[in-house]
Amino acid sequence: MKFEILYQSKKSRARVGRIHTPHGVIDTPNFVAVGTNGSIKGLDSLVVENLGIQLMFCNTYHLLLQPGSKLIQQAGGLHRFMNRTAPIITDSGGFQVFSLAYGGVASELKSQGTKKTDASVVKITEDGVWFKSYRNGDKIFLTPESSIQAQKELGADIMISFDELPPYHTDQQSLEKSLERTHRWEKRSLDAHLANPNHQALYAVIHGGVDINLRKKSCEYLSSLPFDGFGIGGSLGKNKPEMINMLTQVMPSVPTERPNHLLGIGDLPSIAECIPLGLDTFDSSYPTKAARHGTILTPDNQHYNVTRTRFALHQRPLVDDCTCYTCQNYTASYLQHLFRAHETTAMNLASIHNLHVMVTVMAEYRRKIADGEI
Amino acid sequence: MKFEILYQSKKSRARVGRIHTPHGVIDTPNFVAVGTNGSIKGLDSLVVENLGIQLMFCNTYHLLLQPGSKLIQQAGGLHRFMNRTAPIITDSGGFQVFSLAYGGVASELKSQGTKKTDASVVKITEDGVWFKSYRNGDKIFLTPESSIQAQKELGADIMISFDELPPYHTDQQSLEKSLERTHRWEKRSLDAHLANPNHQALYAVIHGGVDINLRKKSCEYLSSLPFDGFGIGGSLGKNKPEMINMLTQVMPSVPTERPNHLLGIGDLPSIAECIPLGLDTFDSSYPTKAARHGTILTPDNQHYNVTRTRFALHQRPLVDDCTCYTCQNYTASYLQHLFRAHETTAMNLASIHNLHVMVTVMAEYRRKIADGEI
Repeated sequence: MKFEILYQSKKSRARVGRIHTPHGVIDTPNFVAVGTNGSIKGLDSLVVENLGIQLMFCNTYHLLLQPGSKLIQQAGGLHRFMNRTAPIITDSGGFQVFSLAYGGVASELKSQGTKKTDASVVKITEDGVWFKSYRNGDKIFLTPESSIQAQKELGADIMISFDELPPYHTDQQSLEKSLERTHRWEKRSLDAHLANPNHQALYAVIHGGVDINLRKKSCEYLSSLPFDGFGIGGSLGKNKPEMINMLTQVMPSVPTERPNHLLGIGDLPSIAECIPLGLDTFDSSYPTKAARHGTILTPDNQHYNVTRTRFALHQRPLVDDCTCYTCQNYTASYLQHLFRAHETTAMNLASIHNLHVMVTVMAEYRRKIADGEI
Repeated sequence: MKFEILYQSKKSRARVGRIHTPHGVIDTPNFVAVGTNGSIKGLDSLVVENLGIQLMFCNTYHLLLQPGSKLIQQAGGLHRFMNRTAPIITDSGGFQVFSLAYGGVASELKSQGTKKTDASVVKITEDGVWFKSYRNGDKIFLTPESSIQAQKELGADIMISFDELPPYHTDQQSLEKSLERTHRWEKRSLDAHLANPNHQALYAVIHGGVDINLRKKSCEYLSSLPFDGFGIGGSLGKNKPEMINMLTQVMPSVPTERPNHLLGIGDLPSIAECIPLGLDTFDSSYPTKAARHGTILTPDNQHYNVTRTRFALHQRPLVDDCTCYTCQNYTASYLQHLFRAHETTAMNLASIHNLHVMVTVMAEYRRKIADGEI
């Protein structure tokens, strides 16, 4: 993997870059679409590639349980299995495993820290994490080494180091201990990777929650190691202002010569605030999940719901002048009907539109940075 | 509408024909795909048109309740609403209304005639049928005239006369009375249609259940009227042999110079037996419904389920040498994974394949008839 910086803004930390991978180029800043099971819901790989989605995020945890990383390896790797010729990034599996323990980011935030780890679901040791398959109850032991092995079998262009995801509500001592262990796990991930590089790249994950000093310490340690790039992970705060505050203070400590990725954030308002901070890539299932509920993104960072009565007779595209397949061929009125009739075609067409908006908005950000507007 | 017969088999009643409609040609024999709500589940109109589906079946009953035929008329008709440029056929709404009364064909057959009409759902008078909207409980009165009006608003190329669907388990007197009323309703449908032809065509529906004499009487009466074609409807028997027996005896009484359509039957084995009897078109949701359960059709009239374990590592297309989009781009192994991961993309890709098989199998039947093989 090679990272070029084409333009560095003089106004902000924003930059335009290009990540070169064995499966092609990723222009940055960019949005990374999430296809958990090796498919973006309702769309097939060629449709996604033709939309111009340069990097796709697949979840190691889900693929480990179904169909299994070894089966995908036998099929020639994830690209060949799902017929995607463009780059793929996989996560370590850690996020989903710890989501099981804490019940997901949103519900953990809501619980105010009262929810405790369910010992039957997950057990954390220095070596790794025990968890139960939600598919068949099998006990599975995930370690830095086994996560990297699975990601090797999947053959992603970019892999992510195995980390611990401590909850937002945790005490200082636990957070510090978790960070130290995460650093040990990430070093082990790197060692496992470097033993068999296989033309893949490996990102570290910067942790420390909303504790700025811990975040900086994490940046310092991880940037001393030969990772190919950096994810910003762990708890990003309880709301957007807290996240932006943390990133504003931490981004100056993230190495600029390597690409970085904000894990799990990809709504348009957050992206707008993060790009001037120097963030390169963003993954989120938001644009496609929103689409499946009829929420239509517009290129001006707004959205509306096409199932609302006032669009019943809207004989125009979802967004005027939009060049996406959906807007070129179907009206908001027809989309509303398909949603109300519970036709999955509605979700597919809305997903195509929302992903197209993400692709065009990101290209527009790159132009603005290059033109000195950001 | 114009119907040409290009070849009449000397071996059987099979023929190759061509129906000319305002939205283009339908080659016969042909399969008619069912898109109940103005969309074939999981696929959009352009995909369906590019698959070569020359005639699509939409259900007036469903479209009346959502979004309403008047809204579709305001949108410029069903073709424009759903962006289909090729021919569309709509039914009268009667079938669904009577299915509510008798609980559907399959469950009525199973019930051995013990299930009685639920008076709260439907009330039949000489004038028409009262039913309750399943969406909002509104009471709606459907008559021959209102059905034709709705189909005029939808703007289908081919409309179907309003008829009564008596259950399979009925006594001779009720069946005869029902047939007489159906004939009166069909005549009223024709009169309503001819008052405003609007470049649309209207098919009669031949009734009489499995009573051959009543069927012949129905053929005689309906062929005396200027309908553009004939559907074979009502109860077709409790199994395929009974249906084939009925059709074998009745088809010689169906006028040959006008096209005919077998309502609701479209599985490959039935089509194979019906073509030599002189049937022209067949509608069924079977190929797409089967696809959504992982059942893959093959061009030799067989099928298999791709979710079975032995296809887990089948790194080949669903059907070798198949030229469909799905088989050209994805493996059976990947499709199995998508089904097992509950990804709707699996259903979409399998539907594309199964519809492609229907299109190619029907083209092959036309070739065989023209070549004197059937």
